[in-house]
Amino acid sequence: MSPKITTELLKQLRQVMKNPRYVQEPVQAYIVPSGDAHQDEYIAPCDCRRAFISGFDGSAGTAIVTEQHAAMWTDGRYFLQAAQQMDSNWTLMKMGLKDTPTQEDWLVSVLPEGSKVGVDPFIIPADQWKRMSKALRSAGHDLVPVKENLINTIWTDCPQRPCKPLITLDLSYTGISWRDKIVALRSKMAERKVMWFVVTALDEVAWLFNLRGSDVEYNPVFFAYAVIGMNTIRLFIDGDRMMDPAVREHLQLDSTLEPEFKIQVMPYGSILSELQAVGAGLSPKEKVWLSDKASYALTEAIPKAYRYLTPYTPICIAKAVKNAAETEGMRRAHIKDAVALCELFNWLEKEVPKGTITEIVAADKAEEFRSQQKDFVELSFATISSTGPNGAIIHYKPVPETNRTLSVNEIYLLDSGAQYKDGTTDVTRTMHFGTPSAYEKECFTYVLKGHIAVSAAIFPNGTKGHLLDSFARSALWDCGLDYLHGTGHGVGSFLNVHEGPCGISYKTFADEPLEAGMIVSDEPGYYEDGSFGIRIENVVLVIPAETKYNFKNRGSLTFEPLTLVPIQTKMIDVNLLTEKELNWVNEYHQRCREVVGAELERQGRHEALRWLLRETEPLARVQ
Amino acid sequence: MSPKITTELLKQLRQVMKNPRYVQEPVQAYIVPSGDAHQDEYIAPCDCRRAFISGFDGSAGTAIVTEQHAAMWTDGRYFLQAAQQMDSNWTLMKMGLKDTPTQEDWLVSVLPEGSKVGVDPFIIPADQWKRMSKALRSAGHDLVPVKENLINTIWTDCPQRPCKPLITLDLSYTGISWRDKIVALRSKMAERKVMWFVVTALDEVAWLFNLRGSDVEYNPVFFAYAVIGMNTIRLFIDGDRMMDPAVREHLQLDSTLEPEFKIQVMPYGSILSELQAVGAGLSPKEKVWLSDKASYALTEAIPKAYRYLTPYTPICIAKAVKNAAETEGMRRAHIKDAVALCELFNWLEKEVPKGTITEIVAADKAEEFRSQQKDFVELSFATISSTGPNGAIIHYKPVPETNRTLSVNEIYLLDSGAQYKDGTTDVTRTMHFGTPSAYEKECFTYVLKGHIAVSAAIFPNGTKGHLLDSFARSALWDCGLDYLHGTGHGVGSFLNVHEGPCGISYKTFADEPLEAGMIVSDEPGYYEDGSFGIRIENVVLVIPAETKYNFKNRGSLTFEPLTLVPIQTKMIDVNLLTEKELNWVNEYHQRCREVVGAELERQGRHEALRWLLRETEPLARVQ
Repeated sequence: MSPKITTELLKQLRQVMKNPRYVQEPVQAYIVPSGDAHQDEYIAPCDCRRAFISGFDGSAGTAIVTEQHAAMWTDGRYFLQAAQQMDSNWTLMKMGLKDTPTQEDWLVSVLPEGSKVGVDPFIIPADQWKRMSKALRSAGHDLVPVKENLINTIWTDCPQRPCKPLITLDLSYTGISWRDKIVALRSKMAERKVMWFVVTALDEVAWLFNLRGSDVEYNPVFFAYAVIGMNTIRLFIDGDRMMDPAVREHLQLDSTLEPEFKIQVMPYGSILSELQAVGAGLSPKEKVWLSDKASYALTEAIPKAYRYLTPYTPICIAKAVKNAAETEGMRRAHIKDAVALCELFNWLEKEVPKGTITEIVAADKAEEFRSQQKDFVELSFATISSTGPNGAIIHYKPVPETNRTLSVNEIYLLDSGAQYKDGTTDVTRTMHFGTPSAYEKECFTYVLKGHIAVSAAIFPNGTKGHLLDSFARSALWDCGLDYLHGTGHGVGSFLNVHEGPCGISYKTFADEPLEAGMIVSDEPGYYEDGSFGIRIENVVLVIPAETKYNFKNRGSLTFEPLTLVPIQTKMIDVNLLTEKELNWVNEYHQRCREVVGAELERQGRHEALRWLLRETEPLARVQ
Repeated sequence: MSPKITTELLKQLRQVMKNPRYVQEPVQAYIVPSGDAHQDEYIAPCDCRRAFISGFDGSAGTAIVTEQHAAMWTDGRYFLQAAQQMDSNWTLMKMGLKDTPTQEDWLVSVLPEGSKVGVDPFIIPADQWKRMSKALRSAGHDLVPVKENLINTIWTDCPQRPCKPLITLDLSYTGISWRDKIVALRSKMAERKVMWFVVTALDEVAWLFNLRGSDVEYNPVFFAYAVIGMNTIRLFIDGDRMMDPAVREHLQLDSTLEPEFKIQVMPYGSILSELQAVGAGLSPKEKVWLSDKASYALTEAIPKAYRYLTPYTPICIAKAVKNAAETEGMRRAHIKDAVALCELFNWLEKEVPKGTITEIVAADKAEEFRSQQKDFVELSFATISSTGPNGAIIHYKPVPETNRTLSVNEIYLLDSGAQYKDGTTDVTRTMHFGTPSAYEKECFTYVLKGHIAVSAAIFPNGTKGHLLDSFARSALWDCGLDYLHGTGHGVGSFLNVHEGPCGISYKTFADEPLEAGMIVSDEPGYYEDGSFGIRIENVVLVIPAETKYNFKNRGSLTFEPLTLVPIQTKMIDVNLLTEKELNWVNEYHQRCREVVGAELERQGRHEALRWLLRETEPLARVQ
């Protein structure tokens, strides 16, 4: 990997930082955040401004360019990659290390007195603006919004913003019509006494209108905003996709409707001026509800006294609790996904010993098998196909330079998933195609014990996910092992594979209480640097539990695995399992057999069915 | 319990709220917080202003009096008590219930436009002031400091502030001299580039100077502040206790010392003016370190630009990590405490069947046995001696009106502890003096399983206590049971029985990572309203653990029980215990036998020794 040469680009950027065409007054520093105007995890190529200016294209990182310096803040996952992709114009700021200054502290240390620091107000979330602005002001500097994005002014071959056709989802997929979702949203608004709600997150727009898109890779979303009033619905979206008869029919654009359900379609770019008009027309006590992560630009459009900001929007919370149609869709998607993986693992078992299967080939084959399944749309994230030491790189993605050949001597870790029209999958299995060592089996079994401890946990209604995180670690901890990532994340229903507001992590921010219908991943792991990686991941559904005493009618919850892919028994040291854990494995495999076996049979995939039956033979303790 | 009649008092308070002798402008509301000027959990009688004005004397509650209203905010522990103790002048605001307004929201709803809300700036912590002031200002009101405490102006028989003699602790108790503590503190100050440190918490003053007092019941502290500069030490303390030759010798007040260790003794009441003088004399970049919980008055004495505020002071953190002398002292204290409890339980076993032992008699007897032990000073908190349904009241303290007789038909819960010159104890045991029911044994055994799960947990260095909380609940959760309090709190060394900055709780605030030498309680429970309460509490020391793989040299930790009092085996359903848990109980009892047995022998307490030997017989599984 050779670094991107950025000398000329930085020169150009420093010129526009002083160019009165773009800035009222010269800015002495310019911040290039990672995200887009919707604070998405995955972004479209036209929004990869930080990668354009620096060469570093990891998923997280903030660039700051001053007249003298160019610095990049990123976290431990990307220290190596960022160092390789950036040239000597850039200083790498390793976040999480003790001596690394914060962006604010660094700015204060390098800027001349009374400096202006510029940032695109559409890209920076309001909460970040507030923090940074305060820190800079207290040191005598100013954070200023620069309307035109300065990277765009020098990015001559910047790709177009995607504007792909939409998919309409009917009630059999969504369970609730968009009209009923609007009614429910308005009732939440009435409860909080707000008159307007601004939808800024792309997956929230998609969920609200029962539409999907493909503007962003892996995330079935489309660029749009919405502003919902008590009597009006405005959808801000570009392109001729609203000319599609199916979409017009779905949104009833040409029907005679009660006025409060009439959708006004407006250009994507007009959101700011429309919102400013809303802000200007508010009467006292008319509040406008926004996520506190909405962009500074949109937040500022509403006068401060009229803003109602919350970390989670009512849509985010409603979206997290899946209804019966969504849950059934997720079940179907996971069965199809299991069929694809049974095919893949059966194929790998035969092919790996030949020494011709690389990580990329295996990933492609997984996609091929998935794409044969009904309603397959695309992958839900970049497949992590990693063997041997590559498995220890938690966010590894095989590229030609690192591509390793699978062998019977190394552990293989596959973390992959897909978007189907009926649901989103995300599954990790760790396999050995030869004979694992006792140490590898030992580590695998601790990880499995952690996985089971979470999956089988029973807990009272209202418990937050972070309280379950240690259950996943206890068996590892007992032997002095651990893993440095959270145990689980929320999963969307044919939406983003990572979604809020719940999860299972030792980090306690972003953690609303778990409730029945929520879907999260359960994915403990163990990573031995330079040697191997182990992770066992199921997507699990929060369901009511039956307990002897039922928490004085507070009710209790547990998890049901939606993922139904065999866990390789060859990797398990049965003697390390308790009776309860052994039964869990056998019951899980029995369920895989019944449910996935029936589907394999139906699809006539007899060889994969034989593989499934063999891999799900009940385990017994060696006497 | 009849309520306090407060009509006349409220009338007087409302008069002084308008009296120009005390307020520059009339205040339309006056806040009476719970605490004292040091934000202590336990307060002296002279600081019980909220109890004086309202009648409600629980440990937590804030009163607000306006011209028309008088309202009291308190939490679920005290709803019943507050309702009983307050007359109809008062409105009870039940915190934690959905419809209860916050103090700020309530004030905004009842106050006329542009009101002034007064509060004693010495009593309100700076962080609370900031939050409340902001909320009031945004609604057009003002929070104003009222220098003279308005309750004191009408409290004609207010007791004197206590000013009791001091106890000096030598190196054998403290392990580190006060001079070395000052040196360590100054080095932390230098690290953070601060020139001054203001000690406002009473236990921090006591710890720093290796002195103890008895100004506040249960807490061996004395009213004082300290201001530590890089070259100066100022101790603000009243009374002739500084005339005590032992104290003068201990602090080397009459010795020729290097100037930087010369302690300047100043009147307690001069702290504000002295601190204002410090604040006025600061050069640029000279910062002053304060806890963010210090009073508004002291915080304001330092101009904002010069303040360095942290949630935990370096003294709080240093104090939490006990050194070898303190740890040995804590061990000794717990052995003596166990001797007293063996005596007590042996005595109760004989006396309870006679039907003459009440909760108060039992509590008094516990104190009597403890007071026979060497270096006993006082109790460390009000003894919770509760039988039958009283056991389900988590913060119960027997009073004549509720005093119940112990019997062979009810569970007895005793949560008690003492201050010895060498350490602080806090232990809960739940006993049955007849035959427990199967259900009682079942619940007890789940609680025991939770207690063991925490006590035997192994976890990596740097783990925060809240990540261990669920271990204590898992066995209860499996059956649909839970308890509504945290699992553990920090414990001082001959200091406050509750101290920061660590603990084990599902609440995640106030939770610094655990490290070897810290001491916390491990006290899961189960409470059946109207029927019984169960709690099993040991004080445990954080110690390094031996693990197979040692977290890649990150190191690992576990707990060693300091409390060595038998856990009643009669209450245990052995068949619910795993092999590992059974071994834990037997090993724990073996250790009680050896260590406490030897001490009982040494003290010639043969009957209690026989009781101990019987109670610590190894358990075996019923085949």
